Amino acid sequence: MRILIIGGGGFIGQKLATSLAGRGNLRNQPISGITCADVSAPPDIPAPVPVRGLALDISDRTAVDAVMAKGWDVIFHLAAVVSGQAEADFVSGFRTNFFGTLNIFESARAYAMRPVIVYSSSVAAYGGEVPQPIEDWTNTNPQTSYGSQKVIGELLLNDYSRRGFIDGRGVRLPTVTVRPGKPNAAASSFFSSIIREPLQGLPAMCPVDPQKTKGWLTSPRVVVENIIRSAELDAAALGQNRCFNLPGITVTVAEMIASLERNGGAKALECIDYGIEQRIVDIVSGWAVDFNPQKALALGMTADIGFDSIIQQYIDDELSGG
Amino acid sequence: MRILIIGGGGFIGQKLATSLAGRGNLRNQPISGITCADVSAPPDIPAPVPVRGLALDISDRTAVDAVMAKGWDVIFHLAAVVSGQAEADFVSGFRTNFFGTLNIFESARAYAMRPVIVYSSSVAAYGGEVPQPIEDWTNTNPQTSYGSQKVIGELLLNDYSRRGFIDGRGVRLPTVTVRPGKPNAAASSFFSSIIREPLQGLPAMCPVDPQKTKGWLTSPRVVVENIIRSAELDAAALGQNRCFNLPGITVTVAEMIASLERNGGAKALECIDYGIEQRIVDIVSGWAVDFNPQKALALGMTADIGFDSIIQQYIDDELSGG
Repeated sequence: MRILIIGGGGFIGQKLATSLAGRGNLRNQPISGITCADVSAPPDIPAPVPVRGLALDISDRTAVDAVMAKGWDVIFHLAAVVSGQAEADFVSGFRTNFFGTLNIFESARAYAMRPVIVYSSSVAAYGGEVPQPIEDWTNTNPQTSYGSQKVIGELLLNDYSRRGFIDGRGVRLPTVTVRPGKPNAAASSFFSSIIREPLQGLPAMCPVDPQKTKGWLTSPRVVVENIIRSAELDAAALGQNRCFNLPGITVTVAEMIASLERNGGAKALECIDYGIEQRIVDIVSGWAVDFNPQKALALGMTADIGFDSIIQQYIDDELSGG
Repeated sequence: MRILIIGGGGFIGQKLATSLAGRGNLRNQPISGITCADVSAPPDIPAPVPVRGLALDISDRTAVDAVMAKGWDVIFHLAAVVSGQAEADFVSGFRTNFFGTLNIFESARAYAMRPVIVYSSSVAAYGGEVPQPIEDWTNTNPQTSYGSQKVIGELLLNDYSRRGFIDGRGVRLPTVTVRPGKPNAAASSFFSSIIREPLQGLPAMCPVDPQKTKGWLTSPRVVVENIIRSAELDAAALGQNRCFNLPGITVTVAEMIASLERNGGAKALECIDYGIEQRIVDIVSGWAVDFNPQKALALGMTADIGFDSIIQQYIDDELSGG
């Protein structure tokens, strides 16, 4: 069982690699090796199941072919130019999110290797004139370039799977929070930074109205488990649409801040400054936040029990418990 | 007002060109010329508004750029490798339907010309696990390569329009019947041939169960009018999804055959042979047939009044009335 994680240098990719290495098996087979590919080669992780880093720009078909030629049983495709950047720089997002995904699928087709591919799509697939809650059959009507590129990947994944070129499964990730590290160009970045920075006594900006803004959220641990479960599924269980919404919880930013107070104390609240950033509001307000993810629940996927537990998980995993 | 019809050599493209030439104006401006581009150059049509033929393979980006460089105010993009062929030959469909559409949109972006583009999508956009009737917000969940490629074009059209690269509008065509000419590789071809051939005393094959098989149908005249109306719309009227279902009528094949008897006599029925062709059944049974096209109706689009009138239109337009 050889595993490739594309976008493996990112936060979720690294957690996924660590989790898979710890399990030691996938799809009832022992894992012989895990490779994390990213634009810059991630560091090797010495472990009983070795995790190797590899440099790969998926927008380069020749480079993709060279990596795919090594032969993989399961590929996790998490690589993306994030929403804010794909909106600010159309060509950059198109190259990676559109052509990068196409290159991976086309390379798999060319090599006739039919790998299991778990593809990370996004809540950004939804928007526009659709009723909420979002059902599994609600139209994906993205209102950003990032969301459009993600949904195009879903359509390719479904058709390439139906034709037997790959064995794909696409998971639409809720906003993953609390992310460790620094703010990034994702429009959703503030969903993490308004918790992460205050817990460390650092300033954070809230660019949206806390009462009016909701998120559809998942924690890192839960989303990594759901991604692994997606790889484990039998193709037959996926039905006629291999892409589905992962479970999450719907929380207002005001509720997140109240949870921050419960878990980080009143002094954490003072770290947050408020100032509407219209560019962020425009993107985030186009995302759906009320979902009925029946398909994922039936497939055994789970959600966090509440936002308090998401903060506690961040404190345990990233702040050594306190 | 310079108009380009891509796929202009096809049956709908030719009827569209003739109709536009007869009107003489579009979007409140006089039409100075119409060009019909297709893989083989369609014949010129001498008329007060001249219709010129042009050879163009849309899968060739250089060729697309050369045509786009001429400058167009309104482009109708009707070109496609049809459903049956795109299913039988993945590469052929992908090249024309996926890359061809991408080439047209990318060329428009490169030239910064922002043309109105009317893009023909299809009922084949729907399928799989979605409840019927199909609402405007029902997920496009295609079960064929043709449908997948069409929906990818929709997503590109929406995003390129939102970004101001083009002013697109996408119309999902019901099955257009009765088509003149000969059967083609479209899986829907029999919807026309079981009427067209018997009316001329020629044999026809019905490859599906007449009682179990329904179509979502439109006539050539009505669909051409709706395509022109789509070009006339103000972009603001299109809302957050520029692609929508055109109205049609839902008819069983058995009802079509009963209508054939009313309009063509009992002897027409004897021309039809029956034999299940599983390849056709598999494709057609994946298409949705019950629609609630509220958006199109609100935008002024229309449907035929019944299948008898569709047959009478064919007799009038293609058989000189008898």
